[in-house]
Amino acid sequence: MDMTSNERAAWGRHLQTPVLFNPHKPIEVDSPTIKNVDMNPVRSTRKAVANKEKVLILTPLKDAAPYLSKYFELIGRLTYPHQLIDLAFLVGDSSDDTLAVLAAEADRLQKRTDSVPFRSITVVEKDFKFHLSQNVEERHSFEAQGPRRKALGRARNYLLSVAMKPDHSWVYWRDVDIVENPAAIIEDFIAHDVDIIVPNVWFHRIEDGVDIEGRFDYNSWIESNKGRMLANKLSKDVVLAEGYSQYKTGRTYMARMGDRTKNKDEEIDLDGIGGVNIIVKADVHRSGINFPCYAFENQAETEGFAKMAKRAGYRVVGLPNYVVWHIDTDEKPGNA
Amino acid sequence: MDMTSNERAAWGRHLQTPVLFNPHKPIEVDSPTIKNVDMNPVRSTRKAVANKEKVLILTPLKDAAPYLSKYFELIGRLTYPHQLIDLAFLVGDSSDDTLAVLAAEADRLQKRTDSVPFRSITVVEKDFKFHLSQNVEERHSFEAQGPRRKALGRARNYLLSVAMKPDHSWVYWRDVDIVENPAAIIEDFIAHDVDIIVPNVWFHRIEDGVDIEGRFDYNSWIESNKGRMLANKLSKDVVLAEGYSQYKTGRTYMARMGDRTKNKDEEIDLDGIGGVNIIVKADVHRSGINFPCYAFENQAETEGFAKMAKRAGYRVVGLPNYVVWHIDTDEKPGNA
Repeated sequence: MDMTSNERAAWGRHLQTPVLFNPHKPIEVDSPTIKNVDMNPVRSTRKAVANKEKVLILTPLKDAAPYLSKYFELIGRLTYPHQLIDLAFLVGDSSDDTLAVLAAEADRLQKRTDSVPFRSITVVEKDFKFHLSQNVEERHSFEAQGPRRKALGRARNYLLSVAMKPDHSWVYWRDVDIVENPAAIIEDFIAHDVDIIVPNVWFHRIEDGVDIEGRFDYNSWIESNKGRMLANKLSKDVVLAEGYSQYKTGRTYMARMGDRTKNKDEEIDLDGIGGVNIIVKADVHRSGINFPCYAFENQAETEGFAKMAKRAGYRVVGLPNYVVWHIDTDEKPGNA
Repeated sequence: MDMTSNERAAWGRHLQTPVLFNPHKPIEVDSPTIKNVDMNPVRSTRKAVANKEKVLILTPLKDAAPYLSKYFELIGRLTYPHQLIDLAFLVGDSSDDTLAVLAAEADRLQKRTDSVPFRSITVVEKDFKFHLSQNVEERHSFEAQGPRRKALGRARNYLLSVAMKPDHSWVYWRDVDIVENPAAIIEDFIAHDVDIIVPNVWFHRIEDGVDIEGRFDYNSWIESNKGRMLANKLSKDVVLAEGYSQYKTGRTYMARMGDRTKNKDEEIDLDGIGGVNIIVKADVHRSGINFPCYAFENQAETEGFAKMAKRAGYRVVGLPNYVVWHIDTDEKPGNA
């Protein structure tokens, strides 16, 4: 019978003893070993700050001691509320003092009494025993790129698996050797409300007293027909790397595009991305999209990540006019 | 200088005041928000019980209320030490009382005072709003299989992402509708020391008073040249499903092999696997190998998982003579 509670009271007024059978007595679960995790309220929206959406910043480290001081300086200046941010690092296969420097920097940061300390910092230790030849020629050979990118992909996935908690809405992959970035980069990127988003990654170099702007990251690209045809001819186990004359992909590189004086929010769709600075909706990772440690459609790691995400129907966006500055390094990708 | 401590004592005997500078004073990290996770000691070995290796049992649930009682009965009888086992369930898109029945069964189990209670039970709630047509013809159409398998893959990855903890050495995927299995199945499988391993999955049916053994799981197979050639002709976005006459794969099905009176430990290498009962070394998942929610080399979910693992160099093994019994169901795979 469909009555309002007023109608039911009126209807029941002539009865002496109302009887209620409640077939829906709640089941009370009070065993301390049983835990409930409701993922339905976890969202990734444009209104991330207002909704108190949690961000996880992930940084893989290997022999990274010299970069950590600058890293923490920049991270400490991020304007997204730090009590909503967890940091996690993977330290592995390092022969320098990365772990000790990281511990000291983290401890110093978290003991500050202002609003700089983060919600938490997790340091994951894992050695993969992956060591490339120290010979520069071998390290930069085309053949070395596949194993290297696969190992990097595996390390990223380990870090993700250990560090991502059910309440994270966003995952921010950030390399340790960024030297300059807008403090509002998280808010700026979240405002685009896309699944995966990367900036343009350049570097500065002072040569003969002149400040030269260099293009750094050739892993963010738009696929070409030439690249597709090349991949069709290759064995499924080959990992393509950019900048090797024996494998011309003809792709369009975001690094070559862009004007940092123009509209910073201009978007382009990408098919491959680099790993220096990526912001990802947590749903993408939880659905299983990660960094292939194998040849995924002839790409691995971050480029394979973009290819996998596109195949699964997610959107991958680059901002050609929004620049994040990488440290200058002699180790340029490829041998172009 | 390279001296033993005895030599150093002898050498220093003539000195009055030995002075020690210790440049390696430990860095003490005592901020309560900083956590360290050392993954190096986490291993998956043949001696799992002796090493106290943790097992995570994962079960996705959807409208599964009728099967939970049998599920907990069988789980409760597993001989692998229960204090080393965590259980986790994903409950989603259910219109029956799955969550309540699960809560009641879990609470009852964990309150036992014997050795049956497990280390922990986690119930993850997540609705994906994925609903197939209830029309039997449409549900069983070839076209419906791709979206269905992709949605199942996504649900598995969510469960894995939320439930796997850094100390898990093994992940045991177990469907809710198993009706009979050897109590030592975890130990039996771990003894093989392989990356991914599955049993043969059959069912019983009583017809006219006769006990008929049926073959259930056609997702565990060895790839054929015919299957490879078929895949080469298909678009990368097509997901193959077994048992559809328009897509003949010519694969060898483990379900058709096997003799349960013969050596239960006989191994075969597989290229695709079903999801009824899988035991996986945690390293495989942490390295990023999971259940594609997209077309991975023209397969999705558990079959894509096997293909991905093989491409990454992991070993995928089936035991044709080791049988786990699935509930009999009219919903046979494909329309063969």
